[in-house]
This record gives sequence, C-alpha cells and structure tokens, in this order.
Amino acid sequence: MKAPSIDDVAAMRRALELAARGEGFVEPNPMVGCVVVRDGVIVGEGWHERFGGPHAEVNALEAAGAAARGATLVVTLEPCCHTGKTPPCVEAVLAAGVARVVIATRDPFPKVDGGGVRALEAAGVECVVGVGEAEARRLLAPYLKLVETGRPWVIAKWAMTLDGRIATESGDSQWISGEASRARVHQLRGRVDAVIVGAGTLVADDPVLTARPEGARFATRVVIAGGKPLPKERKLWLSDGVGPVLVATAPNYPRRNADYLSTHGVEFLTATPAELLDELGRRKMTNVLVEGGAKLFGKLFDEGLVDEVWAFIAPKLIGGTGPSPVGGEGVALMRDALTFTEVTQESIEGDLLIRGRLKRAREGRE
Amino acid sequence: MKAPSIDDVAAMRRALELAARGEGFVEPNPMVGCVVVRDGVIVGEGWHERFGGPHAEVNALEAAGAAARGATLVVTLEPCCHTGKTPPCVEAVLAAGVARVVIATRDPFPKVDGGGVRALEAAGVECVVGVGEAEARRLLAPYLKLVETGRPWVIAKWAMTLDGRIATESGDSQWISGEASRARVHQLRGRVDAVIVGAGTLVADDPVLTARPEGARFATRVVIAGGKPLPKERKLWLSDGVGPVLVATAPNYPRRNADYLSTHGVEFLTATPAELLDELGRRKMTNVLVEGGAKLFGKLFDEGLVDEVWAFIAPKLIGGTGPSPVGGEGVALMRDALTFTEVTQESIEGDLLIRGRLKRAREGRE
Ligand SMILES: NC(=O)c1ccc[n+]([C@@H]2O[C@H](COP(=O)([O-])OP(=O)(O)OC[C@H]3O[C@@H](n4cnc5c(N)ncnc54)[C@H](OP(=O)(O)O)[C@@H]3O)[C@@H](O)[C@H]2O)c1
Ligand SMILES: NC(=O)c1ccc[n+]([C@@H]2O[C@H](COP(=O)([O-])OP(=O)(O)OC[C@H]3O[C@@H](n4cnc5c(N)ncnc54)[C@H](OP(=O)(O)O)[C@@H]3O)[C@@H](O)[C@H]2O)c1
Repeated sequence: MKAPSIDDVAAMRRALELAARGEGFVEPNPMVGCVVVRDGVIVGEGWHERFGGPHAEVNALEAAGAAARGATLVVTLEPCCHTGKTPPCVEAVLAAGVARVVIATRDPFPKVDGGGVRALEAAGVECVVGVGEAEARRLLAPYLKLVETGRPWVIAKWAMTLDGRIATESGDSQWISGEASRARVHQLRGRVDAVIVGAGTLVADDPVLTARPEGARFATRVVIAGGKPLPKERKLWLSDGVGPVLVATAPNYPRRNADYLSTHGVEFLTATPAELLDELGRRKMTNVLVEGGAKLFGKLFDEGLVDEVWAFIAPKLIGGTGPSPVGGEGVALMRDALTFTEVTQESIEGDLLIRGRLKRAREGRE
Repeated sequence: MKAPSIDDVAAMRRALELAARGEGFVEPNPMVGCVVVRDGVIVGEGWHERFGGPHAEVNALEAAGAAARGATLVVTLEPCCHTGKTPPCVEAVLAAGVARVVIATRDPFPKVDGGGVRALEAAGVECVVGVGEAEARRLLAPYLKLVETGRPWVIAKWAMTLDGRIATESGDSQWISGEASRARVHQLRGRVDAVIVGAGTLVADDPVLTARPEGARFATRVVIAGGKPLPKERKLWLSDGVGPVLVATAPNYPRRNADYLSTHGVEFLTATPAELLDELGRRKMTNVLVEGGAKLFGKLFDEGLVDEVWAFIAPKLIGGTGPSPVGGEGVALMRDALTFTEVTQESIEGDLLIRGRLKRAREGRE
C-alpha cells in the first residue's frame, strides 16, 4: 500500500531532522537522514552518524527489520551505488525488499550522480525525487559546494557593536560580545574543518583559535598572511596537539621566518585566499570559518569567496574610528550591495546573532 | 469594599496601556491613563487624549458616572492640584466621591510634586503610590527628563548595513533600509517635536525631514551646523507650511548666508548641541529625533546627550570605507563602551530594528 503524498513530505521532514544530527561528525560525507514508512507509519529511522560509519539507509533499514519489506524508504540524498568506506546502499535497499524510494535530492558526487536512482529503478523499485529538495539542498549546501566547485563552504563570523565596529580605535575587541555568544562561536569552531584569521588579527589579538570545549572535530588553524613576517611569539605556534597550523603567504614571505616557524610544526603555503580555498578543498574540508579581521573580510567579500555570515551584534557603542567588520574595495552604490537569503535572527543573552547566506556569493562575483 | 492588591496591578497595567495612546498628541503634557475600579470591576476608563484636552482622571470619572462613588481610581501619574489648561484633577476626584486612589508615580512637575497626594489624603482619600512605577517611569521618561533637566528626550536613529555602515564610500545611503523601515521612521517623525540632522547630512542627502504621511504634530526641523556656510539650494529651505526650520551654528557662521536663508523663514541660533537642547527644552519640546550623520552622533554620544537609540539593520554588505554610524572621540577600551537597558528587537520586512535606552546617558558622562 502506498503512503499518501502528504506522508512523504512529513516523513522527509523527519528524515531531514535526523540528517542534521550528523553535522560536524560526518564531513566530508554528506549529512543524510532516512525513515522507513509502512502503511503511513514510521517503522525505522536512521542517519549517517559519523564519517566511516554506516549510512543513513543502512541504519534505518536495520531499525525497520522485516517491516522494510514492501515499505517506502524516505531519504534526504540519493542512495549511493558505489563501494566507498561501506558497501553501496542501493544493495541494502534492494536486499531489504523496499518497494518505493523517496529522495529529496540527487547526489552530484561523480560516482553517484543519478546512478543510485537508475540502479533502483532497473531493479523495479519506484523512485520519487524532489520531495523536500530545497530544504535538503540548504542543509547540504557545504557538501554540494565542495563536490561541485572543489572549495569548502566559507562562513564569515564577526562580533560588532551596535555602532558597527569590531574593535575600538586602539584595537581593543575583548570583549564585544558576551559569554554566551562566545560559547556559541566555540561550538561553531568545533564542527568546522578550518578556522582562519588574517595576520592583523593574529598580531592584535594573539588568538588560539581552538574550540573550547572540544567539538566533533579539530579544525586546522589557518593564518592568511601577506609578505610581512609574522611574530615569533604567538600562542598559536605553541598550542600543540589540538589540530594543525597552516600559514598561507604571499610569494615574498621571508623564508627565514617560515623556516623558524616550521620547526614549531607550522605548515607554510604560498597561496592567495582563493588558492588557499582550492587547497583546503583538495584536503576534503567541507566547512571553514573565517574570524576576521576587516582587511581579510574585505578581500574575501570583494572576491565573492564567502557563503555565509554570522554577525553577533552587542548592544554597546564605542564610536571613534575603530574598524567596521568588512573593509576591502566594497561597492560604491547601495544598489550594488551584497544581499542575503535565509536571514535568521536569534537573541543570545543580550546579544543578537544575525545569520544569512550570501545571494551572490557563487554567481557573478567570483 | 477594597479591591485586592492584585487588581491594583492589573488595573494599572490597563491604565498604562491607555496612557500610551496619547503619545505624540499630549506633549509637553505627560501621557496619563486612568481606570475606575469598583468591586474588582473596571467601571470607567480614560486617558489624556490631546494637549489642552481633559485629563485622564476626568475622562475616566465621566465614563464611570455615579459608579465612581466609593470606588478606587487607578492612575499612572499623580493627579494635578493646580489649575492649568483645565481645573485641578484632585477636585474632580473628590467631587466624584472616590474612596481610594492608586498612583504609579509622583509628578515632579513643580506645581504638583506631591501636592496632589497631600490634597487627596487631607480630604480623607486613601492613596497608594508606586504600583507599576517602573513601567510608568519608562513610559514617562521623556516628560520626566524635560521636567527634571529642562532638556528634551533625545532619540538617535540610524540605518546601517550588516557590516555597520551608514553610507558607501561614495556617500550613497539611499536606501540602506527597506520601505517598511522608512515608513516607521516617518511615523516616529510624526510624533516628535524636532527632527535634527548634521550639516554633512544636509549637504549629502538633501533631506526634507517631514513626516509623510503627517503625524500627530509637525516637528521643527533643525540643522546643527558649524562655521561653514550651508548651501543655498536645499529642499529644506523650500518646504513651507510643514513646520519651522531652525539652524544652530557656531559663532563664526557667515552672517551673509544666515541673513539670506532667514529671508526664507529659517531661524538661526548660535548654540552648541547642548545649548540647542536647552533652548528646545525652553520651547517645551519633549522628544527630539536626531537622524545623523556620524560626526554629529559622535559629538552627541561623546557628550552623553543621547537617551535612546533606534538602529535599523539591513541585511546588506557594502564594505570599503563608508562611515560607521557613530564617530567622535569614542572610547579606547571595550570596558568603557556605552551600554543599554531595555533593548528590544523587531523584524521589519527583512530589516531588523534594535532599540535601547542608554544606561549612562544621564549619569557621569554629561
Ligand atoms: N570583533 C571581531 O569579530 C574581530 C574579529 C577579528 C579581528 N578583530 C579586530 O580586527 C583588527 C585586525 O583586523 P585587520 O583588518 O587589521 O587585519 P586582518 O584582516 O586580520 O589581517 C589582514 C592584514 O594584516 C596585515 N598584516 C599582514 N602581515 C602582517 C604582519 N606580519 N604584522 C602585522 N600586520 C600584518 C595586513 O595589512 P597590510 O595590508 O596593511 O600589510 C593585512 O591586510 C584587530 O583590532 C582585531 O581585534 C575583531
Ligand atoms: N544611514 C543613515 O542612517 C544616515 C543618516 C544620516 C546621514 N547618513 C550619511 O552620513 C553622511 C553625513 O554624515 P557626516 O558625519 O559627514 O556629517 P554630519 O554628522 O551630518 O554633519 C556634521 C559635519 O558636517 C560637516 N559640515 C559642517 N558644515 C558643513 C557645510 N556647510 N558643508 C558640508 N559639510 C559641513 C562638518 O564637518 P567638519 O567638522 O569636517 O567641517 C560636521 O562635522 C552622508 O553620507 C549621509 O548619507 C546616513
């Protein structure tokens, strides 16, 4: 018996909820959630829980057991048809005797890319693709970007005062946002693959850039430097055992300084910001977090390299001439301003967190 | 029969709601609301509806009629005991035979200042003062400031991008916020006594500064200029019949230019911002709205002259070197940042409006 289409939508909503639980644990794999529905009732649930572990479909089918026979499998991403860390999910779906598969979106990963659907249909399983697709693609955007462009999803985060400054005239920025906001940033650090700052921020703030407490993964900590030598005494060089440190420099960066810091385990790389993102993509990084400062953000926004913004706004005023969050060339006219989609607001103990995804980040300006 | 005290609180909440309806219509009088409660039931409601019109107590007593005899009158501000535009309310309360009066807060107006309570108690009416006082004082803050300091309540309003800028590098600021936000600013203009801008904003934006559509009152439009001549061709000089225009200048402002603009009906005044506020207070202005720009805001915040901020934040990025909302000297350290109380957030069709009252505006920094 087929579930009515309204149930597909509700089941997919549940599958998407489950998928999101994998955030931080599964990358560079996609987050995937799955429910098995029989006679309009969910008889099994599962999600991809950690990188290298069983896929969502396998977990859901196992939970469903014999009830999977003749059931509908609702999954947020096209089942895989190749052997990776685990055997192909298509096989598991067929072996369980599933009659119908509802998929939110196809997997652009070259070894799948429609092959999962074709294999299922060839075996006589009815496939419906596109239920909850927009939400699934929203959730999977970092994965999809990495597969499609070879670059990680770039989140720019800053904390600013209500008068739009990220530091006072004298360079003081500790602290703009409150404790709860900062805890939120540590959570974010704990699920990304890299945490990036500009050289100016390394010099001014001497940050460690680790997630405290630890998160699902250890980010590589990255400094984007120019041609000027970085200081030899920074906390970043000393914090061993909490994730690698990488410095991207201009070609004229002083070799002696690089050699010295390399003895502390720092990796050096000659790369522009765009080239750095290519390299991080080659290293299979899905999400990277950029924490400023203004000059680095200016460069990244000018080049259209940012996908998402997290702006913490603290109800404080500092005036003077302290920096705004985004420098660079900028735009001359309001009508050319960068705009956002999916803007959300959240109160965090007095601060406000505004998040949004850039509308034009991946079109036109890159 | 006395109403239980819980009813006093609920009745005061209602009286405060009624009081707020007078906003924009009653100033420089205070907003006042009143309910008459008998046996725990509201038998009459009223508020001060417009300047020169009957007071809240009189309206509520009229609505209650004979039911007022022996009842409790709940009023947000101490009843007046002097003859102003209308006869004293204390007389009306006594004449109606009210047994008990509950008051949120005393009226610091010199001709009242406890006299209302004393007169009622002398006539044998039980008085309770302080129910809902914090909320009443919040509502009446502009009135209280004017009575206590001789200066109007100063609201600073700006519209900024998510990267904290009020204009692009080239000076373009039209438009940062959306239509609904701008409509909200027009509503605000329509209830204040003056709308103030700096000379730089007059030059860059050529604003008219009127409320469109018209509000409860016509604001005086004010330019705070320095010693440099203002341009002779500005819309502000031409917009007759929609409220007076005033220019506050430094002593060295060129007389010829002032004489010329005076022939267009523009009033000139030699005054610092603080002296201007004193003068606007003498003119019985209760609320003034300052709409920028950055240099003027800098001066006002440096001198502790601002009471309330309305910051519209649009989800747009412009980068570059465009101005932040507040310039001036500012503070060097985050721990000296100005902070707010009663911060509220509101979504306005994509934009965000953050409002707050300055914590230290009237202490220490003035
Ligand atoms: N509130 C927040 O969220 C937040 C976040 C991050 C930073 N901040 C604040 O932002 C400020 C730093 O931002 P920023 O825009 O100046 O810099 P940045 O964007 O962090 O770093 C880029 C700039 O650093 C400079 N730089 C390169 N090598 C350097 C070296 N060896 N030594 C010193 N500077 C070097 C370069 O400036 P040139 O091109 O001039 O060489 C480069 O453009 C600090 O005050 C920090 O507290 C605030
Ligand atoms: N988005 C918003 O909410 C908003 C609101 C208002 C303004 N704005 C933008 O802010 C900018 C203007 O702000 P601002 O900080 O430059 O100035 P301002 O604060 O409006 O005005 C004060 C400054 O004007 C200058 N000034 C004095 N007399 C002048 C004259 N006759 N001609 C030209 N300038 C004179 C003075 O600068 P000196 O001390 O150097 O002489 C003075 O410090 C504009 O780009 C405007 O679009 C945006």
